[in-house]
Amino acid sequence: MSRSISLAVIPGDGIGPEVVAEGLKVLAAVLPQDVKLETKSYELGAKRWHETGETLTDAELARLKEHDAILLGAVGDPSVPSGVLERGLLLKLRFAFDHHVNLRPSKLFPGVKSPLAGEPEIDFIVVREGTEGPYVGNGGSLRTGTPHEVATEVSLNTAFGIERVVRDAYARAQARPRKKLTLVHKNNVLVYAGHLWKNVFDKVGEEFPEVSTDYLHVDAATIFFVTQPERFDVIVTDNLFGDILTDLAAAVTGGIGLAASGNINPSGDFPSMFEPVHGSAPDIAGQGKADPTATVLSVALLLRHLGYTDEAARIEAAVSVDLAGRGAAAVGHRGTAGIGDALAARVSG
Amino acid sequence: MSRSISLAVIPGDGIGPEVVAEGLKVLAAVLPQDVKLETKSYELGAKRWHETGETLTDAELARLKEHDAILLGAVGDPSVPSGVLERGLLLKLRFAFDHHVNLRPSKLFPGVKSPLAGEPEIDFIVVREGTEGPYVGNGGSLRTGTPHEVATEVSLNTAFGIERVVRDAYARAQARPRKKLTLVHKNNVLVYAGHLWKNVFDKVGEEFPEVSTDYLHVDAATIFFVTQPERFDVIVTDNLFGDILTDLAAAVTGGIGLAASGNINPSGDFPSMFEPVHGSAPDIAGQGKADPTATVLSVALLLRHLGYTDEAARIEAAVSVDLAGRGAAAVGHRGTAGIGDALAARVSG
Ligand SMILES: CC(C)[C@H](C(=O)O)[C@@H](O)C(=O)O
Ligand SMILES: CC(C)[C@H](C(=O)O)[C@@H](O)C(=O)O
Repeated sequence: MSRSISLAVIPGDGIGPEVVAEGLKVLAAVLPQDVKLETKSYELGAKRWHETGETLTDAELARLKEHDAILLGAVGDPSVPSGVLERGLLLKLRFAFDHHVNLRPSKLFPGVKSPLAGEPEIDFIVVREGTEGPYVGNGGSLRTGTPHEVATEVSLNTAFGIERVVRDAYARAQARPRKKLTLVHKNNVLVYAGHLWKNVFDKVGEEFPEVSTDYLHVDAATIFFVTQPERFDVIVTDNLFGDILTDLAAAVTGGIGLAASGNINPSGDFPSMFEPVHGSAPDIAGQGKADPTATVLSVALLLRHLGYTDEAARIEAAVSVDLAGRGAAAVGHRGTAGIGDALAARVSG
Repeated sequence: MSRSISLAVIPGDGIGPEVVAEGLKVLAAVLPQDVKLETKSYELGAKRWHETGETLTDAELARLKEHDAILLGAVGDPSVPSGVLERGLLLKLRFAFDHHVNLRPSKLFPGVKSPLAGEPEIDFIVVREGTEGPYVGNGGSLRTGTPHEVATEVSLNTAFGIERVVRDAYARAQARPRKKLTLVHKNNVLVYAGHLWKNVFDKVGEEFPEVSTDYLHVDAATIFFVTQPERFDVIVTDNLFGDILTDLAAAVTGGIGLAASGNINPSGDFPSMFEPVHGSAPDIAGQGKADPTATVLSVALLLRHLGYTDEAARIEAAVSVDLAGRGAAAVGHRGTAGIGDALAARVSG
């Protein structure tokens, strides 16, 4: 295991810097003394775009590539046209660094209130494909702005791209007690992409005889997310369906304030990036009201990815205890920094 | 108003015939004596496909076109490869008859148990575009079945197609007490299609100054469906997002056993088609366990579309009373026919 971590930090906009500060606090507290942590901050996001018109330069991309991992807070602001930072920064990073495993665990921690009745048991992970599907940016518009405009979006799907993420998902299912993998797609309508997904899913499954599998259409999957979420263990799905399902999963497990994610390149050829699922929430920025838990849990994913398994588990345990003691208040009187302090105290020593 | 109705009936597979029988029972009971109801049954679906390899012939399409409306139960069976009946029958009808307004009301009726905690008030309608987007079937696959396969799906969106459904949605919002319309898309990633939707939405909105509007990304919309469903009044969205959102909407309002839908061509150039949102549920077919309520509510949509407003309202009122009296059991000892009998008795006289 490497005994040093070179971490790129993109605090971003809105509540991004606040939650990232707490994530780094907990990271520093959990790491053994002999691990050298070096962080470098990259000022990317809305402010930067307003000032320079840049979202992410090639030079920055090259420098980011040299780090072991990236921690991102949140980017975005209503003052920036929709799509600019998403395509020019967030998705650019995912595509440039080939983050094909977009990992999003969903767990209803004890003590956390779900909007679902009856205190369901929820503990699954979604493995969302991160570099293909409708996210490739392959589209266009003709006669733009006229009553005759036509706009297209092309979903691109490759056997290569699907196979690697599906295999990753099988391996994750194999390593979990229930060993269950669900493929979600819409193969009764999107027959070309859907059948490719299904065929690859079935074929790779032959390598994992212990893993039990099933298939759900995306519309049906949303039903089970609210009526029977305990049926899920690992889910593998395409980029867009994964985007939708993981927000819903976050909602039923207590909100995006708690949902962590990793944009992972398992090969290690490029740094993987970890970020809370929530956005920059400019309405509550700077008020100490943001819950840093999703960022802290993203730090745990980051550590596990870099091989610091015990440290990751310690963070998750600390979060679990903290959440159990919170009562109804999500953030409460402790505020963003107070929660970070409490978690840092719990993981250290 | 025409004092005769020529109705095409597609009972379909699984529970389709059972629920359609009850829908027709209630329809017959609610219609004034002087309205002549003629029904003609079309044997389409899995059985027909197994016997003949046909899903829907041009001759059938031509005959269906002559009716005032179509009532469909459900089609599909695990024995038929995924996509065959969907593309060859269901979607073929929607596209051939230009059903661009896919109307799906979502209401949590008093007495019905939602999987959401805290008995939320839910009463919104989703206007789903029905003839464009990723549903157009414009895709393909290259090097099929090899490790180098590439599969595409093209989402096609036109200003013409979006404008007509958006205008329909505004008009529906305008006619409701809250007068609120929410556009759902993913315009931060699907920038070409998303911006077209948003521009058309804003432009058509100028014609409806009384309607208040907002915009949500589809992922965020799923969160609000479970945390704050009362915020919605009318939603307009694309074909695929509408598919996903309406299953979720059905789930939070008590299940797809209650969710009705209309595939509407407002021009009247082609017959509109009404169907429950649920599928053919072969596992419970023929056992009298299926809830015919979604089909009965679809009959109400059908009647309203044909101008029988009072009759539609009477059906909805009857369903409301019936649901309020059911208690925990969705179908219970009365069975499919028992519920149909009860509703027929309530609407007649
Ligand atoms: C901001 C946006 C580009 C992003 C996505 O769609 O992937 C977000 O919703 C997410 O889930 O990380
Ligand atoms: C069966 C399928 C083609 C259909 C759709 O995707 O539209 C169904 O899910 C629906 O919502 O009516």
